[in-house]
Amino acid sequence: MTKFDEATGAIRVDETTYDVCLDPGYSIGGPLNGGYLMAVLLRAVVDASPHEHPVTTSAQFLRAAVPGPAQVRLEQIKTGRTATMTRASLVRDGDSIIESLVTTATLGGAVPDWTDGPSVTMPPMEQCLWLPAPKIESNMTLNAQMELAFDPPTIGWLEGRPSGRPEARAYFRMAEPQDPDPYVLALAVDCLPPVVFSAGERGWAPTVDLTWHLRALPAPGWLTVIAGGRLISDGWFDEDVEVWDSTGRLVAQSRQLARVGRG
Amino acid sequence: MTKFDEATGAIRVDETTYDVCLDPGYSIGGPLNGGYLMAVLLRAVVDASPHEHPVTTSAQFLRAAVPGPAQVRLEQIKTGRTATMTRASLVRDGDSIIESLVTTATLGGAVPDWTDGPSVTMPPMEQCLWLPAPKIESNMTLNAQMELAFDPPTIGWLEGRPSGRPEARAYFRMAEPQDPDPYVLALAVDCLPPVVFSAGERGWAPTVDLTWHLRALPAPGWLTVIAGGRLISDGWFDEDVEVWDSTGRLVAQSRQLARVGRG
Repeated sequence: MTKFDEATGAIRVDETTYDVCLDPGYSIGGPLNGGYLMAVLLRAVVDASPHEHPVTTSAQFLRAAVPGPAQVRLEQIKTGRTATMTRASLVRDGDSIIESLVTTATLGGAVPDWTDGPSVTMPPMEQCLWLPAPKIESNMTLNAQMELAFDPPTIGWLEGRPSGRPEARAYFRMAEPQDPDPYVLALAVDCLPPVVFSAGERGWAPTVDLTWHLRALPAPGWLTVIAGGRLISDGWFDEDVEVWDSTGRLVAQSRQLARVGRG
Repeated sequence: MTKFDEATGAIRVDETTYDVCLDPGYSIGGPLNGGYLMAVLLRAVVDASPHEHPVTTSAQFLRAAVPGPAQVRLEQIKTGRTATMTRASLVRDGDSIIESLVTTATLGGAVPDWTDGPSVTMPPMEQCLWLPAPKIESNMTLNAQMELAFDPPTIGWLEGRPSGRPEARAYFRMAEPQDPDPYVLALAVDCLPPVVFSAGERGWAPTVDLTWHLRALPAPGWLTVIAGGRLISDGWFDEDVEVWDSTGRLVAQSRQLARVGRG
């Protein structure tokens, strides 16, 4: 069992309630990362489902979460041969952190009937830039959990040279050796800096809605995470993410709508 | 008041319940169109919200709906200065048709801080193909409510010449003169034939999750609806839709995960 498996563990209390402990190792400047929180929530949803995989997850984020004990509350809305639909809430101190709708199903390993390629070609990994390791006193503890090698222009904002368009692209794997699985993918779809940083924005960019689809079970090895956006307007932006596995298969897709950073 | 306004009307019973009447004019081979059903649900959500616009909607579709009386049941989860989050269900004869999470906010008309262009350039309207009018006995009543002028290769499947990739693109407006608004956009994001038809699939392709974002209030005139998909695999496909208004502004984005047609 890896640290990530432990940090996302959900303990069944009864058929509608799971106890979880939100881990301090996944914070981004204080609040916990949204992808990590989804992974925790999905552990409980899948444990309670007759199906094995969280195929589609729509999560709305109500407030920031800090580490500590919390609960996942479930209501199965419909279950059938192909899929089960569950309403799931992540609750901390009586406050709802995430409200979500999740469809679980069991994916096979079929060869795709049709597939597109990545929307952008990544440079080879040796030409990429590694995210600097967090300083000891940093409250970006998430960075210590994963290895990210960025397509250089998309991380230029870190040194004052934003590319001028909303984008972020990186190779990703967990720092502790771990084959990717659906929970790692829940983290991966929300693991990059907000795409608006590359368009020159800064500050906390809270997610309002993040919907992601698990398209296939990922093969072992590095993941490629490609993020972009179409519009920054009226204080809102979209962030679209594709995740490809080491065999070149599309394994996850997400889109979030978020608020442009303040402060 | 247009026919569409009437067909999507929601009558307040109390703060958590609205009566609606699902209109037979929006069926696709029997069941009602998912975009139409979202429009009905969103009328109730917005009426009960202190904010004016349905900015993000995540809807999971539990079963097909037929015309007749139904209810929208609401629970406001959180409300604040910027946004209100609501859980909303469309219920018919005691069965949940749609479960959704909706964030309402009030959009201004700000000039975008950054915007991409359409992912595909449409040919001029005079080179497009009009959807054939439905036969009188048709149960595709939805087609009579809207005018669609298709980018020719994307409707080739109708005459046995699918383009070989999941796609659909058309100019769209309501058949009855009506300026587009957020409810028309809810219809527009689900108004095209399933993109998999163009990849050679056929049959009923039920939506499991449809999440859409209202990005700006649309200007009067034609809308341009551009749909594509990335992967058809394991019985599932994604359908991504952009809607642009007559001034060339991105007004809506959606992605749905659906099942490949059976029968």
